[in-house]
Amino acid sequence: MNQLQVDQIIRRALEEDIGHGDITTDNLVPPDQQSQGVMLAKEDGVIAGLEVAGRVFALLDAGVGFEALIQDGNQIHTGQHLARLSGPTRALLTGERTALNLLQRMSGIATRTWQLCRLIQDQKARIVDTRKTTPGLRLLEKYAVQVGGGRNHRFGLFDAVLIKDNHIRAAGGITPAVTTVRSRVPHTTRIEVEVADLDMLREALAVGADIIMLDNMSVEAMQEAVEITAGRALLEASGGINEQTLAAVAAAGVDYISIGALTHSAPALDISLDLL
Amino acid sequence: MNQLQVDQIIRRALEEDIGHGDITTDNLVPPDQQSQGVMLAKEDGVIAGLEVAGRVFALLDAGVGFEALIQDGNQIHTGQHLARLSGPTRALLTGERTALNLLQRMSGIATRTWQLCRLIQDQKARIVDTRKTTPGLRLLEKYAVQVGGGRNHRFGLFDAVLIKDNHIRAAGGITPAVTTVRSRVPHTTRIEVEVADLDMLREALAVGADIIMLDNMSVEAMQEAVEITAGRALLEASGGINEQTLAAVAAAGVDYISIGALTHSAPALDISLDLL
Amino acid sequence: MNQLQVDQIIRRALEEDIGHGDITTDNLVPPDQQSQGVMLAKEDGVIAGLEVAGRVFALLDAGVGFEALIQDGNQIHTGQHLARLSGPTRALLTGERTALNLLQRMSGIATRTWQLCRLIQDQKARIVDTRKTTPGLRLLEKYAVQVGGGRNHRFGLFDAVLIKDNHIRAAGGITPAVTTVRSRVPHTTRIEVEVADLDMLREALAVGADIIMLDNMSVEAMQEAVEITAGRALLEASGGINEQTLAAVAAAGVDYISIGALTHSAPALDISLDLL
Amino acid sequence: MNQLQVDQIIRRALEEDIGHGDITTDNLVPPDQQSQGVMLAKEDGVIAGLEVAGRVFALLDAGVGFEALIQDGNQIHTGQHLARLSGPTRALLTGERTALNLLQRMSGIATRTWQLCRLIQDQKARIVDTRKTTPGLRLLEKYAVQVGGGRNHRFGLFDAVLIKDNHIRAAGGITPAVTTVRSRVPHTTRIEVEVADLDMLREALAVGADIIMLDNMSVEAMQEAVEITAGRALLEASGGINEQTLAAVAAAGVDYISIGALTHSAPALDISLDLL
Amino acid sequence: MNQLQVDQIIRRALEEDIGHGDITTDNLVPPDQQSQGVMLAKEDGVIAGLEVAGRVFALLDAGVGFEALIQDGNQIHTGQHLARLSGPTRALLTGERTALNLLQRMSGIATRTWQLCRLIQDQKARIVDTRKTTPGLRLLEKYAVQVGGGRNHRFGLFDAVLIKDNHIRAAGGITPAVTTVRSRVPHTTRIEVEVADLDMLREALAVGADIIMLDNMSVEAMQEAVEITAGRALLEASGGINEQTLAAVAAAGVDYISIGALTHSAPALDISLDLL
Amino acid sequence: MNQLQVDQIIRRALEEDIGHGDITTDNLVPPDQQSQGVMLAKEDGVIAGLEVAGRVFALLDAGVGFEALIQDGNQIHTGQHLARLSGPTRALLTGERTALNLLQRMSGIATRTWQLCRLIQDQKARIVDTRKTTPGLRLLEKYAVQVGGGRNHRFGLFDAVLIKDNHIRAAGGITPAVTTVRSRVPHTTRIEVEVADLDMLREALAVGADIIMLDNMSVEAMQEAVEITAGRALLEASGGINEQTLAAVAAAGVDYISIGALTHSAPALDISLDLL
Repeated sequence: MNQLQVDQIIRRALEEDIGHGDITTDNLVPPDQQSQGVMLAKEDGVIAGLEVAGRVFALLDAGVGFEALIQDGNQIHTGQHLARLSGPTRALLTGERTALNLLQRMSGIATRTWQLCRLIQDQKARIVDTRKTTPGLRLLEKYAVQVGGGRNHRFGLFDAVLIKDNHIRAAGGITPAVTTVRSRVPHTTRIEVEVADLDMLREALAVGADIIMLDNMSVEAMQEAVEITAGRALLEASGGINEQTLAAVAAAGVDYISIGALTHSAPALDISLDLL
Repeated sequence: MNQLQVDQIIRRALEEDIGHGDITTDNLVPPDQQSQGVMLAKEDGVIAGLEVAGRVFALLDAGVGFEALIQDGNQIHTGQHLARLSGPTRALLTGERTALNLLQRMSGIATRTWQLCRLIQDQKARIVDTRKTTPGLRLLEKYAVQVGGGRNHRFGLFDAVLIKDNHIRAAGGITPAVTTVRSRVPHTTRIEVEVADLDMLREALAVGADIIMLDNMSVEAMQEAVEITAGRALLEASGGINEQTLAAVAAAGVDYISIGALTHSAPALDISLDLL
Repeated sequence: MNQLQVDQIIRRALEEDIGHGDITTDNLVPPDQQSQGVMLAKEDGVIAGLEVAGRVFALLDAGVGFEALIQDGNQIHTGQHLARLSGPTRALLTGERTALNLLQRMSGIATRTWQLCRLIQDQKARIVDTRKTTPGLRLLEKYAVQVGGGRNHRFGLFDAVLIKDNHIRAAGGITPAVTTVRSRVPHTTRIEVEVADLDMLREALAVGADIIMLDNMSVEAMQEAVEITAGRALLEASGGINEQTLAAVAAAGVDYISIGALTHSAPALDISLDLL
Repeated sequence: MNQLQVDQIIRRALEEDIGHGDITTDNLVPPDQQSQGVMLAKEDGVIAGLEVAGRVFALLDAGVGFEALIQDGNQIHTGQHLARLSGPTRALLTGERTALNLLQRMSGIATRTWQLCRLIQDQKARIVDTRKTTPGLRLLEKYAVQVGGGRNHRFGLFDAVLIKDNHIRAAGGITPAVTTVRSRVPHTTRIEVEVADLDMLREALAVGADIIMLDNMSVEAMQEAVEITAGRALLEASGGINEQTLAAVAAAGVDYISIGALTHSAPALDISLDLL
Repeated sequence: MNQLQVDQIIRRALEEDIGHGDITTDNLVPPDQQSQGVMLAKEDGVIAGLEVAGRVFALLDAGVGFEALIQDGNQIHTGQHLARLSGPTRALLTGERTALNLLQRMSGIATRTWQLCRLIQDQKARIVDTRKTTPGLRLLEKYAVQVGGGRNHRFGLFDAVLIKDNHIRAAGGITPAVTTVRSRVPHTTRIEVEVADLDMLREALAVGADIIMLDNMSVEAMQEAVEITAGRALLEASGGINEQTLAAVAAAGVDYISIGALTHSAPALDISLDLL
Repeated sequence: MNQLQVDQIIRRALEEDIGHGDITTDNLVPPDQQSQGVMLAKEDGVIAGLEVAGRVFALLDAGVGFEALIQDGNQIHTGQHLARLSGPTRALLTGERTALNLLQRMSGIATRTWQLCRLIQDQKARIVDTRKTTPGLRLLEKYAVQVGGGRNHRFGLFDAVLIKDNHIRAAGGITPAVTTVRSRVPHTTRIEVEVADLDMLREALAVGADIIMLDNMSVEAMQEAVEITAGRALLEASGGINEQTLAAVAAAGVDYISIGALTHSAPALDISLDLL
């Protein structure tokens, strides 16, 4: 992650929460009072965002010490100590919520990703995220997916081509769409085409699409797609895949399975900060 | 909501997703092509954020028309048309994901809030949110809570006093804490004190706290707290309250019940944009 | 004060004054020349903003040392040394004006506030500021009022409710206005109503307003208001109160007296920076 | 004035005052309610900033109409109508304070400048401002000085050279200072030297300074300076000049008289906005 | 191009040039004076940036009309009229330099690209740009390369993988480098490896690199590389290729030729704006 | 140069190049790997921007050491070592291109300026730059001109008056234009008038213009202009002056010669960064 962007996200979050000042803490806690604290897991899961959480305090007050006791990607258990903090009580109290809000969300995503990855750990298929992320936090959320064992799809509209039905219609078909875009975008970019059936798949293969997204296809159709493709393109399954259907989709032989719920619906992981 | 802040959130979200350009759309769709589209509910729920979604397109291209067919707060059903769009195809395709990401999250929160409110609709108690919101989106998320029938707690650290255990310890007790903060913060601000037992409650009442948060108390203790308080302060129940425990807590007679999960763990509501 | 916001104010002020460069200093003073300086009171008053002034130099050049010889809130006398500086001559010369502009304004406000507070020091009433502050500097100006012995009113339109005549008219009366707003704003917020006569006062009391602003009332009417209210709400006197009328208003028994001139018309306190 | 910078100042001021929302107005006034209002002088003076005040409302809501009834620079009298407004009641109420804060400060400065200019209207000398402006508002304040009949000194450290005692010391004398800076700064820039006595004046003249600032000199010394200079440079009187001493200083024959109090200590002019 | 980013570039450019105001124009030209103007080629070339130039004026004053007479990518000849402008004289004069600075640079790049493309127009090879662009203007410069007939390489460090010698060393060889990066970056991204000789080429091919950059190789070595590769990867020639060597490199059969000088050393194309 | 502005330029450049992350380096180079590197001249020239280049790395990672081996303004030769770097390999690789892009451009401008200055080193005339700079980089480019031995013209539209033909027309002639602007702009600002012939020159002299720009005049006309002026104003030659015509123009006796190509068409100087 680009640290300059991480810092911007954190500064914005602090600004949003603190505004003109923490009127409780600033009026009750002396500026020179020091405290120690510990971050604590309140439920089981996979941790993601410890450095980000520590950075929240560092940007508030350079005098805060933050020692991670584990690493991003580790499994954690209820009651486990995750990090030790020490420094001005004011900074610890004022930064607590922002740090936890980020850490809980990132860990929630990592945990959800890890749970799903475990369901298909013996398969070739890899779970990938989507652009269905929280506006403003994509950088952190895509990182959390990686931490949880998933892979990232393109970051945004700018770093890869994904030709959907509306693009196909505007271009007059898959063949002209792929040909046109190939002649215009950087040669460093792969081209993915979303297809709804096997005829579209065959056309996409014929015109040399690098990746083909099988959109809302049945498992049987996906199996057939894998056979037809025979390694000539990467295949990505997409569309409402969940815990129940995941294993079957993976068994169909696709290369990637993209799941928006990794980021748009993962519940936060419960973590607290206790001052000693 | 302050529209200037809403616009900043949207601009940042567009910047994050579009970067230097939508390389698929810009290379395949002619700039003058026009389309029409419809936003469609893919599941039942409560809608929130329609104006925000429309604004995404307006900030991308002033030529996009956005007509909401219902209003924020309305219940929606699978298949229902929520809004009609028309304008340059490029803007519709490029703005789609950002608009939906915002709308789905806001509607998810409104829906979750509405579901919980319904469980205690015959009680006095009101459900309120917390500061456990998504960093950068608090404005939109607190609005969504309102839309779903909930009430807002303080917006941030700056607009109300909430004295927690660490503040009490730093001040040397509830009484000096309330007295000190009362003499320093604007007289326009209420003072809330978090208490863990009935002794603390009595001390907070004695020193004139405006609101008392009953933190992780049993339903029985809360009932006793209501009796002791007898209207001298507002009572707010807090701490891990969920669908199972909500009705009992409300029946204990508290005024407010704060629930972080409204914002940190509400799943997105499924909504799509179909071009015609 | 939120230090992140203070830093933004300072950076903007430096940017405004320095632009692309201090063409006098940069062309005449060698980068490695060191100097020492002292901040000096040129008139009597109350100092406010010493840390802010020191921060101006720190943001320009981390090598500048700034040692405050007194503390914000201290009374100062002509000729008194307020702070010692040492470091690169360039930074001292380039930052001088910005540091003094901030310090002089803040100290001017603190001094004016202190002068007025002294006039009613034996009374219960507290002097409070208003939103009539310098655009962009409210954070610093409200802090200066506190330093001078005054209290702050709400910070902005977002952290408290103040129902004025136009709001009353829009809502159809004081009673519906208070009832409506009470059902919508956070329960952490007090509600203030501006009244022009005793009938309005009685209505505001009846509907449970927390604070009542007595707008441009005579001292006699204010006395009567105090009696009618009998502690059921906080009373705030407002409207053109000045040095001549202040004592009488306070003697009427109100709780707060708000004075816009604290911030919109306090003359700067004369302070200079002498290099040795 | 660069309108892009004016807009930035206004946006920042609105952000500071409105924050996440005007919780009184947004909860009491229907979004479609329309009102009319009038800006009204509450005391005599010179108006400055009418377009800026109008722009505040335009940036809040493009639907607000703002019709100035007079022009910047006009003298106004108590009770005079200055501008008519019409549009959404919400925008009028929410923008009122920010618009007035800007207009009152600018008009206060214009009024103070005009009062001082009148005192020497038959003299050659022109009153000029300084860099002792409110951080963040220099653009508006220097414009207000012009509106009041004064002239602007350099805008900041970047657009003209002003060699003060510390620069002279660093350069080893007036002669090397002027020579060095002349060889480095754009030829489009005049060079001003601050002198404390007539010997320094003579040296500055000899080395070809374009402008010479007579710092805290007696009126007699200034007269002599005028004779010695004999038009070879522009002369600027500076240092604690006020209403009492202004006429005598002007009569000494200097070209410019700079007065920091124009901007750092001018009281706001009282103006109100009445909704009809 | 993302218009939101283009606008940011333009606003920054205007801010840089105008600062607090165009003191010549604002003091000499009445605000309501209207003019007409024409943009005029002063030398032959390929035009790029006409919409950007028009946008400069639109952001300054919405009242400026800008009618492009040709389109980006057209060849232009000395004396040719490129666009007609009409509107407030002030905006035309104040915006002129910024508009021309952008247009001249973009057209200079388009022209240089077109000249080089013409030299190899009968070959398969395509000329691509690099990241050697002007900091802050990459978006516009990469667009100009396209307009001139070139292709874009990756936009930045974030949208494609380019493994250079230092990366290879850090990873312990080409094979582990490609394998590792393939397992971590989005599957939508192609992987390019820079090789210095044919052994490295063979290793890169064996491990499945998508693109191979032949860095500073002789034409003979490149020919051999083409034969060895036999279409299994895209080949990109790089390193000091210029007008003299371009044709030979293209004839060697590579797919892409990257040339930094397209953007870092293209002279501006001379264009003027004449008011009528 | 104002370091705060330099830092903004660098941060923007890093943001543009790195985006959400350097996906090659971050996935291949361990965070704790350290390297050493050297900046190396690949051609002869004059170096400018070494501190800026070093600052790029410092803003990326405070742990990077950067030791300049020479100083801005030094002549450098192919193969010469310019600076030594040491620190985290990631920061060295990620910052390399941004640092070089800035350094190469600045050095290119310094080199071009130095080459032209050398052609007239025995003449009085000084070469000055123009506002034909790269949008966003004017601060760095004008500094580079100084480093190369040139002088700066005004920085922007705000720090000096330059009256061109359109201004003259709007004002109704040179005399009213100069008189009007003189009465309005700061007395610290010189006034320059662009003239196309000797009659205009005489009028400008008569009205006391400080600087007169001889626009596209023949060398003979310029000689005559020098005689007519006889030191009463500074003379600046302008308009398409190049290597061929420069010496003759200087010999005509003008004070300044402004050349836009210094900044808009100087090729980058080739410099590389080699890791050891």
